[in-house]
Amino acid sequence: MAGGSGTRFWPASRRAVPKQFLPIAGGRSMLAQTAARLRGAVEWEKTIVVTSRDHADLARRHLPKLPPENLLAEPLGRNTAACVAWAAIEIAKREPDSVQAVLPSDHVIAPAKEFRRVLLAAAEEAAERSALLTFGIRPTSPATGYGWIEAGPPVAQRRGTPVHRVERFVEKPDRARAEAFLAGGRHLWNSGMFVWRTDVILRSLGEHAGALHERLRRAVDEGAIESAYADLPSVSIDVAVLEKAAEVLVVPVDFTWSDVGSWSALPGILPVDPAGNCAAGGVALLAEDSTGCVAWGKSGELTALLGVHDLVVVRSGKVTLVCPRERAQDVRRLVARLEREAPGFR
Amino acid sequence: MAGGSGTRFWPASRRAVPKQFLPIAGGRSMLAQTAARLRGAVEWEKTIVVTSRDHADLARRHLPKLPPENLLAEPLGRNTAACVAWAAIEIAKREPDSVQAVLPSDHVIAPAKEFRRVLLAAAEEAAERSALLTFGIRPTSPATGYGWIEAGPPVAQRRGTPVHRVERFVEKPDRARAEAFLAGGRHLWNSGMFVWRTDVILRSLGEHAGALHERLRRAVDEGAIESAYADLPSVSIDVAVLEKAAEVLVVPVDFTWSDVGSWSALPGILPVDPAGNCAAGGVALLAEDSTGCVAWGKSGELTALLGVHDLVVVRSGKVTLVCPRERAQDVRRLVARLEREAPGFR
Repeated sequence: MAGGSGTRFWPASRRAVPKQFLPIAGGRSMLAQTAARLRGAVEWEKTIVVTSRDHADLARRHLPKLPPENLLAEPLGRNTAACVAWAAIEIAKREPDSVQAVLPSDHVIAPAKEFRRVLLAAAEEAAERSALLTFGIRPTSPATGYGWIEAGPPVAQRRGTPVHRVERFVEKPDRARAEAFLAGGRHLWNSGMFVWRTDVILRSLGEHAGALHERLRRAVDEGAIESAYADLPSVSIDVAVLEKAAEVLVVPVDFTWSDVGSWSALPGILPVDPAGNCAAGGVALLAEDSTGCVAWGKSGELTALLGVHDLVVVRSGKVTLVCPRERAQDVRRLVARLEREAPGFR
Repeated sequence: MAGGSGTRFWPASRRAVPKQFLPIAGGRSMLAQTAARLRGAVEWEKTIVVTSRDHADLARRHLPKLPPENLLAEPLGRNTAACVAWAAIEIAKREPDSVQAVLPSDHVIAPAKEFRRVLLAAAEEAAERSALLTFGIRPTSPATGYGWIEAGPPVAQRRGTPVHRVERFVEKPDRARAEAFLAGGRHLWNSGMFVWRTDVILRSLGEHAGALHERLRRAVDEGAIESAYADLPSVSIDVAVLEKAAEVLVVPVDFTWSDVGSWSALPGILPVDPAGNCAAGGVALLAEDSTGCVAWGKSGELTALLGVHDLVVVRSGKVTLVCPRERAQDVRRLVARLEREAPGFR
């Protein structure tokens, strides 16, 4: 899934180049890293990328080995239910007896080897069940920005990894509930990564999101994706299917994971200097009496910080952004204002 | 005087383009504004600019109407005594019976008409006296970064402007003394602008800085400025002459004045938005929940501030600088570190 429009990483992420196409976690773009992480577990021929039509060329450039017919270009964004359904319909045409893994292209995961081990364990379990599997992240803080999953008792064990029943999904709890979840030890963060048999998710979509499924199926048959998409509801696969399905399982994972929700997440996933400052994108950093800052810029550029703390300083194109790390998620508000007042910088 | 190397306005001021060549106060460079301010009082033919040899071409481009022979290019910086002496020697050759006004090229002064009125009043007074005249700024704060002047009783009145005897110079007082000066009402800031008869300053230089004066006089006679400059002491005209001379007068002035000592001075001389933010250099500013900030950048660029206060955010070339306004004078320290660690960005 490479369809995001990325407003929280403005001004580095723009309409033309959203977050998944940026080297947020160093070196290659997050999309290229996501694809690379699969190598050894999934062949290029079985890798399907769904992105916006506006970013299709960009995606091809970032993934030169992706077979052209494996790039699905959505005419407009319709959240994850449409994305998952279209991909599942395409996969079923090519290989009806298959397992689908649904993976966002803008997550940081390490080590890749452990990720592949868990992915293959989940795929083996999914192949033998009519269940929908999700990956659960062991929580490290009472985060209110994630969906949480209450895990029930284990129902199986694959390659040494237990698989639990999902008791319930809790969408973005308040602080008190999140703290109780964290203390209780039975809750996990919903990673937004899923594994299931293709026929199982298509049957579930038919059951819980029948109109969407039927509209897309006909559109694929008739080669009329363009006109179909405008009619589709914009809904997440979690809300459309997962929260309604009877048999949902969760695989607790132990690899390091971050959905890199905003600039303030970078010090958690990138090297920091002894004062806790972190530079990304290639920019050089000169920090004097400064701690806990995040700098983004290109190779060949310099960000100089003097006497500042816990700031985000982003330079991209003709735009410079400065905000406290604790306000980084509000960059979206700034972008909304920009759409009205200075759309050229969006 | 256009010889400064400007470290306090880094990264906008670089070795190649110091502060006096920047449009700090809007529109044209400070040098061009300083020259424009004289028009109506002093002809181009009588305007002499002393700058570094490294910046001579730049100065010519900023002052296309300056006669080529009126640009004195110093082979290296030797503070203001050498600069004033060389110019005075050149002026005396061309017009022995003349008055010299010494004006820094990086001050903001308004309105220009009032400045010219005071300049001509001082010149008239100087023409009839063997005294050195300095302009004194009425203090508005207990500034510890300026030299202060204790004014004695008035000795004359020119065009309605009183001229006072200078009782003494006080170089950068501590806070308590500065507060006492401010409260006492008899002290003024030393503006670094001077007016005197050319023969009077040359006689004073001979008396108080004989070696410097003699070395420069011979160098001008022999066309050997290059070799002479390396031998000259690096000393200010204040220390070399003013503080030692017997007859020094001060003209209290009422125009708005700023020596624009650092980025934090900009909100005092430029328009600010209702939240006290100030943008200079042409950059567009988008400020959300942000107050008291100073942004510098080029036209066509955008600086976006979210939830920050009293910050300086400068973008110039490949460099971005962020520091609190109260640390702006320490940018010099950062530049010193840069000379060692990343001279390419200096």
